[in-house]
Amino acid sequence: MATSPQDILALPVVTLRDWLASGALRATELADALIARIAEVEPHVGAFAWYDPGFLRAQAEQADRHRQLGRLIGPLHGLPIGLKDVIDTKGIPTENGTVLDGGRIPAADATVVARLRAAGGLVLGKTTTTELQFLHPSATRNPANPEHTPGGSSAGSAAAVAAGMAPLAVGTQTGGSVIRPASFCGCVGFKPSFGAIPRRGILTQSPSLDTVGVFARDVEAAALLAEVLMGTDPADPQAQPMPPPALLAMTMADVPVVPTFAFVDLPGFSDAHPDLRNAMADLVERLGEQAWSTPLPRLFNDAAATRGRINDVEMAHHYRSYASKGWDRLSPQTRDAIERGRAVSAPDYLASLEMRGVLAAGLDEILTRCDAILVPAALGPAPQGLHSTGDSIFNGLFTFTGHPAVTLPLFTDTAGMPMGLQLVGRRGEDGRLLRTARWLHHRSASADRHATGEHDV
Amino acid sequence: MATSPQDILALPVVTLRDWLASGALRATELADALIARIAEVEPHVGAFAWYDPGFLRAQAEQADRHRQLGRLIGPLHGLPIGLKDVIDTKGIPTENGTVLDGGRIPAADATVVARLRAAGGLVLGKTTTTELQFLHPSATRNPANPEHTPGGSSAGSAAAVAAGMAPLAVGTQTGGSVIRPASFCGCVGFKPSFGAIPRRGILTQSPSLDTVGVFARDVEAAALLAEVLMGTDPADPQAQPMPPPALLAMTMADVPVVPTFAFVDLPGFSDAHPDLRNAMADLVERLGEQAWSTPLPRLFNDAAATRGRINDVEMAHHYRSYASKGWDRLSPQTRDAIERGRAVSAPDYLASLEMRGVLAAGLDEILTRCDAILVPAALGPAPQGLHSTGDSIFNGLFTFTGHPAVTLPLFTDTAGMPMGLQLVGRRGEDGRLLRTARWLHHRSASADRHATGEHDV
Repeated sequence: MATSPQDILALPVVTLRDWLASGALRATELADALIARIAEVEPHVGAFAWYDPGFLRAQAEQADRHRQLGRLIGPLHGLPIGLKDVIDTKGIPTENGTVLDGGRIPAADATVVARLRAAGGLVLGKTTTTELQFLHPSATRNPANPEHTPGGSSAGSAAAVAAGMAPLAVGTQTGGSVIRPASFCGCVGFKPSFGAIPRRGILTQSPSLDTVGVFARDVEAAALLAEVLMGTDPADPQAQPMPPPALLAMTMADVPVVPTFAFVDLPGFSDAHPDLRNAMADLVERLGEQAWSTPLPRLFNDAAATRGRINDVEMAHHYRSYASKGWDRLSPQTRDAIERGRAVSAPDYLASLEMRGVLAAGLDEILTRCDAILVPAALGPAPQGLHSTGDSIFNGLFTFTGHPAVTLPLFTDTAGMPMGLQLVGRRGEDGRLLRTARWLHHRSASADRHATGEHDV
Repeated sequence: MATSPQDILALPVVTLRDWLASGALRATELADALIARIAEVEPHVGAFAWYDPGFLRAQAEQADRHRQLGRLIGPLHGLPIGLKDVIDTKGIPTENGTVLDGGRIPAADATVVARLRAAGGLVLGKTTTTELQFLHPSATRNPANPEHTPGGSSAGSAAAVAAGMAPLAVGTQTGGSVIRPASFCGCVGFKPSFGAIPRRGILTQSPSLDTVGVFARDVEAAALLAEVLMGTDPADPQAQPMPPPALLAMTMADVPVVPTFAFVDLPGFSDAHPDLRNAMADLVERLGEQAWSTPLPRLFNDAAATRGRINDVEMAHHYRSYASKGWDRLSPQTRDAIERGRAVSAPDYLASLEMRGVLAAGLDEILTRCDAILVPAALGPAPQGLHSTGDSIFNGLFTFTGHPAVTLPLFTDTAGMPMGLQLVGRRGEDGRLLRTARWLHHRSASADRHATGEHDV
């Protein structure tokens, strides 16, 4: 059995889960491997806002004892999970990326934390966030190249997973804060359908948009974690009552027929990095008759501005106590957005909200004719520099309409930096989207091996 | 069997329902009695925006045939129902009280219309509304005194029921548009819990506030109609999934213990009509230890302004096509509200919406200690003149918080004009509120007979 720390960390999370459940691997062995990895890598990445190896090991010891006593174990038994530092953790600092919340220690776990603890998951640590999960960057560096941004706002969650410091992590997306950093850092990011994961106990920026998402190295692991977090919560009025998703089983299933894809020409695609445009063109060509291209109605040209207006307004409302108690300690990006939000009239805000249904119907129409929409996850690789988290131009639309999206680390630019391919599915059909994404991920990996001379599977 | 038209119209609606179901009364007999009554009274009241005796009789003949063929009959079999002219009726004009909708004929029934038709109810006619169900009056007169307003916005529904022209009617309330006209005209008005009756196919003024309600001459009849209209509708996101209410059975049940009441000192009560203040004091005295008085926190002083701000904003948004196509044809009241709404900033609107939960919690706390809150339905009797529909000062709070409210025509002023007593219950406990209201209605009627020398029951 492969039990060197490096070998352990190279295993797929679903395999880790099986080994932890069977007793082939102890939770403390996994924790020790991660502690060693974090000690080595974290000084160069800075993915954690709070991390205590002793606390992680204590939880792992407890998990091992729990299993040794023959008690029932949960689906995340022994798996350490990074949590964006906007997610409340009982007794553990949660500072929302702002000095204004310095020393803040929540009295209760967020719903997602309670769920992952109940499923046997361990709190690995709190991962960095941009200031108040908006645009002002954290100090985190991209593990693929420390001179480049990891993206944001869920910077630490993406970087920790991509750098092998966390098997799994949780983040949030209001514009592109899950998909973009996952694409920049080179891991899988999954933003489920709006309302699928409840938000109680997570910093509220814009309730019409705020969506909880997950990070992992493969689609199966993302499904494993998201399935535990999903499910209605009476405390979150946007969390829709839905039957349990059986997300992992759906993701692992074979596709019933070869999927088809719509390549959608989103506003901004003409500005994308040439390497990305080439990679997309190559993919569409390889998919052949399975892929077809479609333009979007002109209506979609205003979607980014409309989403931004809603974000500004709701942020101006929900961050008013930050603005009143610490205006001077907020970044210019955050202050500007609050001021923009204050200047929007209430009827204009309502008119903006109404566009959600119109835009969603436009995407739904495309999705009746394919299994998933294909678009890039970002304009290209992570930009150089740490002063900006990059552009979320290809993400905000799907956050606004509430369609589930997943990014796969399928492409690299000529410098070797990762670039994500984003798949978008029907609202509520998260499992089907992940099943399609897994199929495409395996097929592309197989094709790449073939192209580089490795043997095909 | 009492079958003179006068005798028929004097029967309680629940009795009419039983007779229609058993065959003791034919739908055409009831329709003919109503047609005669309307011919006599309507010229002095003006409760109908659209009414066609031939159409009513045709529906009644169809109902009789339906029953004669032995088919299953619904709970409203053969009962004609007045519908406020903001409620879409397929093929029947629905003009929303504005010349801008002159000649408008909907292609589909509102959900409530579909439900009452499916339950065997007949469309009696469309009852008048103020302009766009806001403040600018219709030409309707108060049946108790034609020199006085019937209230609004559901003017025609209240007047038709109070004048004996409709056994039942449907209206809507965004501020006080069900409770106030019922109080002014002297009938029972029932505004259920927010979201209990779906609003699809009804003019949208303010989705955070718009509530469908019913008019009848007694509480049982209001329960009979409301029960048919209640129930979730996927097309109305505010219509909460709830178990079927069994509202009528609950209303008809005996109270398990003698109910208790909280007399709440609403802002504005010191300005109420002396006759109303005396009637309230007399009632509280008669209830003795069953009633206790409580002030409201100062927080409630702003509730009316907060509700008004939400109403203005949402009206400015939802009436924007009226404003753009016919600004000059709108009344000053409507134009002023739209302009006020346009001037509200979006974050102020969101802060106003947030007050709903705070105010509701304050009322809920009182409602944990009593069966119902007692407050007047209006400041006093219907004001003289037809230029204003009166003040909704005692209604808007409960529309905003979503608590169910019912008004009983228990009081009269020294000139003989009706004045309503309003009971407010817990959200979702509509049946319990109506049961309590029925108990109080019967007890007061019995006490009145005793006081005036009639024999007690």
